Amino acid sequence: MPTLVLIRHGQSAWNLENRFTGWWDVNLTDQGVREAREAGVAMAAAGLDFDIGFTSVQTRAIKTLNIALEAMGRLWLPLEKDWQLNERHYGGLTGLDKAETAALHGDDQVHVWRRSFDVPPPPSEAGGKYDMTHDRRYAGIAVPSSESLKDTIERVLPYWDSRIAPELRAGKRVVISAHGNSLRALVKHLSGISDADIASLEIPTGKPIVYQLDDDLNAVERYYLHERNAN
Amino acid sequence: MPTLVLIRHGQSAWNLENRFTGWWDVNLTDQGVREAREAGVAMAAAGLDFDIGFTSVQTRAIKTLNIALEAMGRLWLPLEKDWQLNERHYGGLTGLDKAETAALHGDDQVHVWRRSFDVPPPPSEAGGKYDMTHDRRYAGIAVPSSESLKDTIERVLPYWDSRIAPELRAGKRVVISAHGNSLRALVKHLSGISDADIASLEIPTGKPIVYQLDDDLNAVERYYLHERNAN
Repeated sequence: MPTLVLIRHGQSAWNLENRFTGWWDVNLTDQGVREAREAGVAMAAAGLDFDIGFTSVQTRAIKTLNIALEAMGRLWLPLEKDWQLNERHYGGLTGLDKAETAALHGDDQVHVWRRSFDVPPPPSEAGGKYDMTHDRRYAGIAVPSSESLKDTIERVLPYWDSRIAPELRAGKRVVISAHGNSLRALVKHLSGISDADIASLEIPTGKPIVYQLDDDLNAVERYYLHERNAN
Repeated sequence: MPTLVLIRHGQSAWNLENRFTGWWDVNLTDQGVREAREAGVAMAAAGLDFDIGFTSVQTRAIKTLNIALEAMGRLWLPLEKDWQLNERHYGGLTGLDKAETAALHGDDQVHVWRRSFDVPPPPSEAGGKYDMTHDRRYAGIAVPSSESLKDTIERVLPYWDSRIAPELRAGKRVVISAHGNSLRALVKHLSGISDADIASLEIPTGKPIVYQLDDDLNAVERYYLHERNAN
């Protein structure tokens, strides 16, 4: 049975400051680095191993994967980095403190932006500080001005289908280091979670989620490694 | 004109201890990490940029590349890791202190092993501490029992021809993080250095070598970035 492990990147500087991050390329904190290392140690201790890794083009997810794989003695594994595994683009909310945003727009509005399925935040300001349309890593890509969770899912799943699923079908063991919302896209798909429920699924940083899949890549089992180890 | 940069990994634990390393997977020292970061800072300051990176399957070269690219804001670049860029395999000398080896075998013999073109060291002991034939990263590869510099060149150049040269010909800017002897192989090829002279070419750790190549990938210019910056 194919094994798949999902990891949300370790704590980032803006996780700590409680700011909307999205596509902005924020680094890990020291705690985030520790979380990544501990994830690798825990995976090795549980006998997990991989043949290939996938991640976004965002530093915090790439570093989380590199640090975890190094802790497993697997830094040499082939990795593929793709923008389609990026975090949801938070548009005009990027860089804003979540409490300040709530004070400005009201808790209800912020709740809609954060937890609705298909309502995108306001668009990012063209030419503004957080405009990433000219970042070289996105050359040739239509950088969104903001994304709902639904929009995020709609660019994660084609990548899953075209690049990740074929590796699993070929018998490869796969690890994916990504972000809260790109991982929600995958968990929704694999575990059949409804549109209504998926936005409230919280995925903690640096905690490996293990999937055992059947040959059609349906989930037979899904668990957090740290919960299994504690039993 | 295609740009190519070669970097020898930063100082490793066994560089520091003066032990033969070869394919053994030794990590960077703190100084090695600093060297890698400084290489990245220097490349960015010089306006160098890349489209793709290549490295070996050895931790010290992979980390050097990741650290340097992170310092350049380019951790997201695609990287390819391949054993054909590995350090020369030092066979039965692996793990030995260079001074102790000289005391045991004589300076002249050690000089031949280290600096001859086509004399391999004694083979590694099958089943010994440094036997890497069962390391999973080498599955499907005929792990050598030892390599001369000539042997090393003979597996580096086919990789250059099949994987790296096509990227340069397609106009991509390439960075390669590798090892003293796999880089000698490339410098010998690109700069037309003789069999007699190549083994004594010393390549310092963590110092980017910049090649400007013509469209046929002949070297127009080769220089150490830190020497150019100093002028």
